[in-house]
Amino acid sequence: MSLRFLTAGESHGPALIAILEGLPAGLPISSDQINPQLARRQRGYGAGPRMKMERDAAQILSGVMEGVTIGSPLALRIENADHKKWVGVAIEPFTIPRPGHVDLSAAIKYGYSDLRPGLERASARETAARVAVGAVCKHFLAQFGILIGGYVTAIGNVTADLATQEFRDRIVRAETSAVRCPDPKSSEAMLDAIQTVIKGKNTLGGLIEVVALGLPSGLGSYMQWDRRLDARLAAAVMSVQAIKGFEIGSAFFNATRTGTQAQDAINLGSDGQLTRPTTHSGGLEGGMSTGAPLIVRAAMKPIATTLTPQASVNLATGEPTQTEYERSDFCPVPRAVPVIESMVAFVLANALIEKLGGDSMHEMQPRFKNLRQARLDNLHIENQPHVFWP
Amino acid sequence: MSLRFLTAGESHGPALIAILEGLPAGLPISSDQINPQLARRQRGYGAGPRMKMERDAAQILSGVMEGVTIGSPLALRIENADHKKWVGVAIEPFTIPRPGHVDLSAAIKYGYSDLRPGLERASARETAARVAVGAVCKHFLAQFGILIGGYVTAIGNVTADLATQEFRDRIVRAETSAVRCPDPKSSEAMLDAIQTVIKGKNTLGGLIEVVALGLPSGLGSYMQWDRRLDARLAAAVMSVQAIKGFEIGSAFFNATRTGTQAQDAINLGSDGQLTRPTTHSGGLEGGMSTGAPLIVRAAMKPIATTLTPQASVNLATGEPTQTEYERSDFCPVPRAVPVIESMVAFVLANALIEKLGGDSMHEMQPRFKNLRQARLDNLHIENQPHVFWP
Amino acid sequence: MSLRFLTAGESHGPALIAILEGLPAGLPISSDQINPQLARRQRGYGAGPRMKMERDAAQILSGVMEGVTIGSPLALRIENADHKKWVGVAIEPFTIPRPGHVDLSAAIKYGYSDLRPGLERASARETAARVAVGAVCKHFLAQFGILIGGYVTAIGNVTADLATQEFRDRIVRAETSAVRCPDPKSSEAMLDAIQTVIKGKNTLGGLIEVVALGLPSGLGSYMQWDRRLDARLAAAVMSVQAIKGFEIGSAFFNATRTGTQAQDAINLGSDGQLTRPTTHSGGLEGGMSTGAPLIVRAAMKPIATTLTPQASVNLATGEPTQTEYERSDFCPVPRAVPVIESMVAFVLANALIEKLGGDSMHEMQPRFKNLRQARLDNLHIENQPHVFWP
Amino acid sequence: MSLRFLTAGESHGPALIAILEGLPAGLPISSDQINPQLARRQRGYGAGPRMKMERDAAQILSGVMEGVTIGSPLALRIENADHKKWVGVAIEPFTIPRPGHVDLSAAIKYGYSDLRPGLERASARETAARVAVGAVCKHFLAQFGILIGGYVTAIGNVTADLATQEFRDRIVRAETSAVRCPDPKSSEAMLDAIQTVIKGKNTLGGLIEVVALGLPSGLGSYMQWDRRLDARLAAAVMSVQAIKGFEIGSAFFNATRTGTQAQDAINLGSDGQLTRPTTHSGGLEGGMSTGAPLIVRAAMKPIATTLTPQASVNLATGEPTQTEYERSDFCPVPRAVPVIESMVAFVLANALIEKLGGDSMHEMQPRFKNLRQARLDNLHIENQPHVFWP
Repeated sequence: MSLRFLTAGESHGPALIAILEGLPAGLPISSDQINPQLARRQRGYGAGPRMKMERDAAQILSGVMEGVTIGSPLALRIENADHKKWVGVAIEPFTIPRPGHVDLSAAIKYGYSDLRPGLERASARETAARVAVGAVCKHFLAQFGILIGGYVTAIGNVTADLATQEFRDRIVRAETSAVRCPDPKSSEAMLDAIQTVIKGKNTLGGLIEVVALGLPSGLGSYMQWDRRLDARLAAAVMSVQAIKGFEIGSAFFNATRTGTQAQDAINLGSDGQLTRPTTHSGGLEGGMSTGAPLIVRAAMKPIATTLTPQASVNLATGEPTQTEYERSDFCPVPRAVPVIESMVAFVLANALIEKLGGDSMHEMQPRFKNLRQARLDNLHIENQPHVFWP
Repeated sequence: MSLRFLTAGESHGPALIAILEGLPAGLPISSDQINPQLARRQRGYGAGPRMKMERDAAQILSGVMEGVTIGSPLALRIENADHKKWVGVAIEPFTIPRPGHVDLSAAIKYGYSDLRPGLERASARETAARVAVGAVCKHFLAQFGILIGGYVTAIGNVTADLATQEFRDRIVRAETSAVRCPDPKSSEAMLDAIQTVIKGKNTLGGLIEVVALGLPSGLGSYMQWDRRLDARLAAAVMSVQAIKGFEIGSAFFNATRTGTQAQDAINLGSDGQLTRPTTHSGGLEGGMSTGAPLIVRAAMKPIATTLTPQASVNLATGEPTQTEYERSDFCPVPRAVPVIESMVAFVLANALIEKLGGDSMHEMQPRFKNLRQARLDNLHIENQPHVFWP
Repeated sequence: MSLRFLTAGESHGPALIAILEGLPAGLPISSDQINPQLARRQRGYGAGPRMKMERDAAQILSGVMEGVTIGSPLALRIENADHKKWVGVAIEPFTIPRPGHVDLSAAIKYGYSDLRPGLERASARETAARVAVGAVCKHFLAQFGILIGGYVTAIGNVTADLATQEFRDRIVRAETSAVRCPDPKSSEAMLDAIQTVIKGKNTLGGLIEVVALGLPSGLGSYMQWDRRLDARLAAAVMSVQAIKGFEIGSAFFNATRTGTQAQDAINLGSDGQLTRPTTHSGGLEGGMSTGAPLIVRAAMKPIATTLTPQASVNLATGEPTQTEYERSDFCPVPRAVPVIESMVAFVLANALIEKLGGDSMHEMQPRFKNLRQARLDNLHIENQPHVFWP
Repeated sequence: MSLRFLTAGESHGPALIAILEGLPAGLPISSDQINPQLARRQRGYGAGPRMKMERDAAQILSGVMEGVTIGSPLALRIENADHKKWVGVAIEPFTIPRPGHVDLSAAIKYGYSDLRPGLERASARETAARVAVGAVCKHFLAQFGILIGGYVTAIGNVTADLATQEFRDRIVRAETSAVRCPDPKSSEAMLDAIQTVIKGKNTLGGLIEVVALGLPSGLGSYMQWDRRLDARLAAAVMSVQAIKGFEIGSAFFNATRTGTQAQDAINLGSDGQLTRPTTHSGGLEGGMSTGAPLIVRAAMKPIATTLTPQASVNLATGEPTQTEYERSDFCPVPRAVPVIESMVAFVLANALIEKLGGDSMHEMQPRFKNLRQARLDNLHIENQPHVFWP
């Protein structure tokens, strides 16, 4: 119960709301830390027309006094600017479910008489609320020197080669790219690929990588299945709209390699630091952070709403037919980067709060400094036999 | 809180224990439904020596009277047959952490003076308890005609071609293969690959696919991030030891394709059934089951305990050194299949209980029969405009 | 996870927010069902001056389209009308903690530099959000014929004698009393008692009884400690500001009686109905609803903010001193009735959803009708021996 | 998720099992800390015959190596010594539900064909597992100087006068009394009262008080309804079999008093300590521990199984009839004391872990020492105005 959040809101309702609960007191925060992240979510080549008409802004309705958290729940509100256009308006029936979208299963499950209610809540518009929550979590983690950042590594068949770039550089450079890819050459190719699908009235998916730098060792635990950090990160990331695949580090590649190739050796630095020269494990061993960069990858599918019609059925008339276009993105991958970052930040903020305990930044900061790190002199392994079961 | 489970137990302690909580009354169950699954977990080429010495058996300590569940928690106990060899014995110090294993991070986190306690709990021995839990969940789902099965699709660089096999056939055939792969030719190649790594004193990972057949539409929900079935499946599967990657259907492949290629068209059968000719989406849309086969894939890394030494540090002496061998598997991928099945079965049993409610099989069975399915005549989509926000 | 809610908001911040999550689709709801309950919370003799200046109203920001729930989270917003008076205003330091209030412990726990942040969140102003949530839950339960109502049974030393009044009458009559007590004579005496404490610059507590009528048998469970309905009701009611005691039925009185006095006999009606002539058990047996009226009682303490100063310490100066007055109620007991009702309604709505499962009113209604009730012909107890442990 | 526990087991099944999860590493523990508490639960005048035949003992199946916790789940097993008498035996049909017991509602809810399964799980036999869990929690708290103890304050109409006894004395003296009451004179009267009901073939309830001494300030929180310590304590205590009433401190008495009578003044000691001369609030303000003794009271009903028959119905034959005797206690109140202590200890251990964070005793101990306590010099309240909402 350390840290919790719930979101509410429909795509064209009056507003999105999030409540984030369990933060310590004493964290200075304002919408200045949130709105730039909301803007990042709205930026990215391949976005649909809605991105141009709205400029999201979060209002902090609670949890902050004098610009500082007081330990109470934060309620965040993001207005849906175009809601007013929908009030009192008779909206055309939506009766043809889009393959790959929520439409059909939502109508079966909830018994709707029109398909719109399903998409109103399932829409990726909801991720704006998550980004607001994640911005707060990132800001909280930053107080401990923990940085969360992300970038696009592939769009369609174009894969970026980032091997020579440091993580911090990737994070910075991605923001200068229209497709949020740190490699300029790949960026160009990705832009081309998106332009091609736009012309082809189609959509494209891709891959996103999010890293967390500066994490302490020992977040998460192997003691029970639902305490593992891999499990929690997977749930959080896989809960994002259109994300269907997840890996820690190079998991799918590692599955093809031998054990000695896939691990990260343990080295002893001259200062007693136990270091890892490689990052194959993605920064997690045994469900715990190792202190090395945490690397999370997400596979986003090409979204289901395509200008090219797809085979479906008009559920009102019972006629086989084709889908009709509902306004959408062509390639939301660049825009999904801050969403994945947000979910990762939430999980890590939660894990850090569990590790540190406490109710105020003032109480947590010295505990963080005293955390046992991967240094020889912090460990007390003794060279003697044990009778473990007497 | 519908369905919960916790496991307890160390690898060489007296026993593993699981408590599974939230099942309805009226389910006939005995260890006969559990032990064959435990045996499946112990079978598979590439297993280490421990598999030969133990034959796991589960004792049901509670929750069942007259051979039938009464709605109370099931406590399941699996003895560790070799525990007695460890009682009262002075065990050599374990001071050199294995890269890729829990050893180092566990010692940092919990402050151990020997590395053994970390591996005792983190060991994949714990998955025997999960398989016992999963066997009960599978048996519960089977009462509703839902079948969970799995198989190996890749070991190291060898990938099986299963395109022409039906899911039910794959499940059956896998059990006749020493590597649990439905394709005999690939099985041979996988066996070769494992023999090669055994000779090379190394380990291999691979890919596992688990499918659920006969699911109703509408399990899981998009209404809140932590209710999505993708998120819950991901957490459950990623919580398994050495599993580091996860996808629904062909997610990573779909990320390279266009929108029209990656969706499953909606067809109308002559009987009013709304069918899906393909399975690209892996049986989930909008975080809900569609009623099509649910397809889950897991990437298992090559395990960290290799006969070939790896660079590490003796934490007791502070000397850089190499790892020493701790008994382990060479390729646990075939044996992990029933573990992944178990975690999938747990998530789906939980989702089904949430959908059906009720406290007894007698109460749930008619509700299951009445579930709204993907048929035109069950839907009530109307062809008329709506004023959604009056 | 069936039904969840979180509230957010400070007493003088811009607004209170609640998110209620897990309701089925298909429930017609508008602020017309919520605002009368908010008004009830503002009415009651002994209220402080704030009650006169604000008229609370809830705005439904999400979860409802065309006036009907769609299964998505409801976000409810209640404006704090006097917030604008506080914006940009320098507020006098609050440095003297009130005994019995949150002030001192909150400052210790969260490290505040002024006592106001503690009371801003701890204030009973937050209960307006709970009443909004509870109004929705009550409306949901009403669709199944379940009625939740409450009334005051004691204020200070004045105890009402309600033995001859039916529960439904009590609920109706209470609303005609300035102190929300169904007995006119006791109401007069309670009014007198409150007037006396107002003159004496003091405060008074009292007792509240809330009943649920029309419940089915079998909500809640004894299968695990945290599934018992007594436990859940207790947590919900005891979480209300200033509530410090709780009982099911006449628990404290029953503790003085013998076993044969304290139980409710089981009778067989001519129609096969198994009835209970008395209500000693308060409608719960074994942590489950019996189908008889559920009776919950709460003890509210006299609130800590008194016009009569109390001994305290000025934490800024370190001087022993006396408390200074912060605007408050003299006797909030009548106004707390809808708050307790709300928490009871939330717990019961959650338990009903667990029992029924399902995602829409359309799916739940027939399941409710088919619930096994306390009728002989619904039970299948057989007169034969069993070998429970073969 | 800090600390969790589940129990399993039927009254006459092979064993009771508990899993306790979330404890830190480094706590020395053995069955020597648990068995004396199990013995306390079996001791007490008014117990039924079963107490004489079994001597409960807990086996720790996991979570401990070399006599010290390793941070993994503890599985605790308590054998049911008389289980073997029930194996393979045809047990007479149980068809007449006892008023006040689980029998009727359990059969309705779970659809049993005999009433025994309900009572097998609902039986207070299960509290042995809770006492084992609680013994571990008490031992954990004791490492921080926190003492949990309890005693009987009333049996039937006999109420003890303990006003002049210190809490620590009450705890010690209670163990010398056959009815676990610290006052020798009241003990005698209680014994008489129990003898009278035994002769009258009846049962008696009573009141239990449990106190926690040495708690730090600031456990629990008012930030969200389900974080309040009152709510959590209430749920835990009210989840105990036959407990139907709960109060913090003198809540029901305080409800009759004025505000100035019911609070605990705040005094300044010469050493800067902020002290409370009285204990009216029971050690909680605003849902948080104040650091004063925490006082919890539970009302236990007279149990439903009476030698004197009660009116009921034979559900197999449909005949109105009278209950038949099932072996039970006459007055389990003295024996329930360690059960209530256990539930209180669990809640407080959980709250302490949330406050301290950390994964080992070594990590938690210095954090505990550094907790901000109720001392003037630990607080930083400043005497200056604030613009809280700029």
